[in-house]
Amino acid sequence: MATTDVLKQEIIERFGTPCAVMDLDVVDRNIKRLQSLCDEAGLANRPHIKTHKSTFLAKRQIKAGAVGITCQKLGEAEVMVDAGIEDILIATNIIGAARSGKLAKLQERVPLKVCADNPVSLETYAEAGRSAGRPVRVLIECDTGQRRSGVETPNEAITLAKIVCDDPWLEFAGLMFYPPLDGWPATQSFLDTAKDGLASLNLIPEIISTGGTPNLKNIGTLDGATEHRSGTLIFNDRMMIAAGVAEVQDCALRIFTSVVSRASDNRGILDAGSKTFTSDLGGLEGYGLILEHPTAQIHKMAEEHGFLELSECDKRPEIGDIVRVIPNHVCVVVNMFDQLVVVNENRIADVLSVEARGLLV
Amino acid sequence: MATTDVLKQEIIERFGTPCAVMDLDVVDRNIKRLQSLCDEAGLANRPHIKTHKSTFLAKRQIKAGAVGITCQKLGEAEVMVDAGIEDILIATNIIGAARSGKLAKLQERVPLKVCADNPVSLETYAEAGRSAGRPVRVLIECDTGQRRSGVETPNEAITLAKIVCDDPWLEFAGLMFYPPLDGWPATQSFLDTAKDGLASLNLIPEIISTGGTPNLKNIGTLDGATEHRSGTLIFNDRMMIAAGVAEVQDCALRIFTSVVSRASDNRGILDAGSKTFTSDLGGLEGYGLILEHPTAQIHKMAEEHGFLELSECDKRPEIGDIVRVIPNHVCVVVNMFDQLVVVNENRIADVLSVEARGLLV
Repeated sequence: MATTDVLKQEIIERFGTPCAVMDLDVVDRNIKRLQSLCDEAGLANRPHIKTHKSTFLAKRQIKAGAVGITCQKLGEAEVMVDAGIEDILIATNIIGAARSGKLAKLQERVPLKVCADNPVSLETYAEAGRSAGRPVRVLIECDTGQRRSGVETPNEAITLAKIVCDDPWLEFAGLMFYPPLDGWPATQSFLDTAKDGLASLNLIPEIISTGGTPNLKNIGTLDGATEHRSGTLIFNDRMMIAAGVAEVQDCALRIFTSVVSRASDNRGILDAGSKTFTSDLGGLEGYGLILEHPTAQIHKMAEEHGFLELSECDKRPEIGDIVRVIPNHVCVVVNMFDQLVVVNENRIADVLSVEARGLLV
Repeated sequence: MATTDVLKQEIIERFGTPCAVMDLDVVDRNIKRLQSLCDEAGLANRPHIKTHKSTFLAKRQIKAGAVGITCQKLGEAEVMVDAGIEDILIATNIIGAARSGKLAKLQERVPLKVCADNPVSLETYAEAGRSAGRPVRVLIECDTGQRRSGVETPNEAITLAKIVCDDPWLEFAGLMFYPPLDGWPATQSFLDTAKDGLASLNLIPEIISTGGTPNLKNIGTLDGATEHRSGTLIFNDRMMIAAGVAEVQDCALRIFTSVVSRASDNRGILDAGSKTFTSDLGGLEGYGLILEHPTAQIHKMAEEHGFLELSECDKRPEIGDIVRVIPNHVCVVVNMFDQLVVVNENRIADVLSVEARGLLV
């Protein structure tokens, strides 16, 4: 039997399907690659743990040279602090979580970096800083085209930085960007104007943070940037292949799933649906790439059924076959699993808990 | 303060946002309504627990008159058996989970009902029955238009029923349908033909099972049906409102989420994205109905950001506001939470664990 068949046999006997399987060799290669890209650009590497939500992998990234980590939720940061990680940026306005008192409690334990695009967030952070007895370090989130969060003009950024400086429980740490792929020139001009304005107030942003895995194409092109946040690269996925920043062999996470129905010649059903893969299309056709049958389309999802369209397949999967799927968007798929099975040279090496999964607050 | 404002204050202080809040009064009304609909149609009620994944609610449904429950995953059934529930139908081909030995172990504990649309599933079930020392009861899954799982013709159903009868470790229990909304006449003709064929082999299906919450419109119209499986009705959602089977006041689950950014006049950001709401549109525009701002559109999702488009709003939400959202598809949203906060008359009564969440196998 080929080693992959042996692995499939082991997976089905120990875990059943669907099962999330992570290749540690590929992960290590990806961790190293991200670190090299940041090193070459002269930037600190602050990987985003939203993708893996695992303290084991966060520590592995730090050991490989990362300066710290990025979290998206306060609950994620709590898990990481519990594991001994101290340099954490929470890259979102966290009003709803902070008001529960969780931010103050965590700030008592480690000095956090948070971000804000409005005065209400700043008030909330100041309250947490006061309650913790330690100022909260704040990056001002700036928008240069994503139209998500972030102030739209350098002037607004400067106004918020001033509020930060005037509050004894806040400390101005810098600016945070998540530029669109084609938005780096606009980001440069935003940054230059903001820096000039800040300088006139004697404010120097210590951190200028950029983000995104597809944006690794642009890394190093923002003059003044000090660090980059990338999440997805550690695992990669079908979206990263489509974005041209990864190949199939760079994808570290595969969903092992069984073909459980073939009601007619051109149709089939997987035992994994939207409660495994989610409904994220990410701009692609179909919900994943089946390695054994790359011309098969996973064209539709019910909660626990993946719908296969097989008319383009020369060789079609049979009922009972186990297939390996590279998901469209790995960050949301990992989030559906409590554990990842770790393989090394096609053998099961470990089972990894997705510790920060489901910590929505 | 209005009682809803008091509740919001309690939620934010005890749990933070986003938070899934379940109204027990509405749940009880919905449980009763489903039971009445089945009673009036002369059908057994076998609610699908995929929606709530809670043993507390499953038992509440049984106490109200349900004959047993439907599960979609073996892992869900395990949790329900642990809680003392014995009459369980697993409504899907479960080859990948069964091969792990889990089916045999559960079958040792309680006599399960499973379903199949192919001989490989039957082999797997027979193996589990043999290993457990107790025959597995099998419903043949029949497709009358969903093109998901299920044999496409009565003849195939009869062939599979024969295989079941010829195997000492299998027992023929009946036929399972999940008719499309407009597919009930086709289902009737399928059923009649299948029953005639089965009769000529002296086989009488004890169970004829239909399913679906929107299909409650058609309940009772299939002559020969014995039971109905409905999941979503216990909570309802925006899809059920659109399907005309529920009103806003019948929706028992609301996501409490905070407005955390308002970077420009027509835009806003919630602290809940696709890792809370999922990306299921369910054929609707936007990702949920905001009760406080029904004309606001949740038009886009990032993992932890819900994008608001506010141009149609007379009164716009402010940063820090907590809003209540009825999700598009409640079954997949509950699956994102480890716990539901139970409220009764707008006061927090309990916290309910979503025990069968994440049991993908």
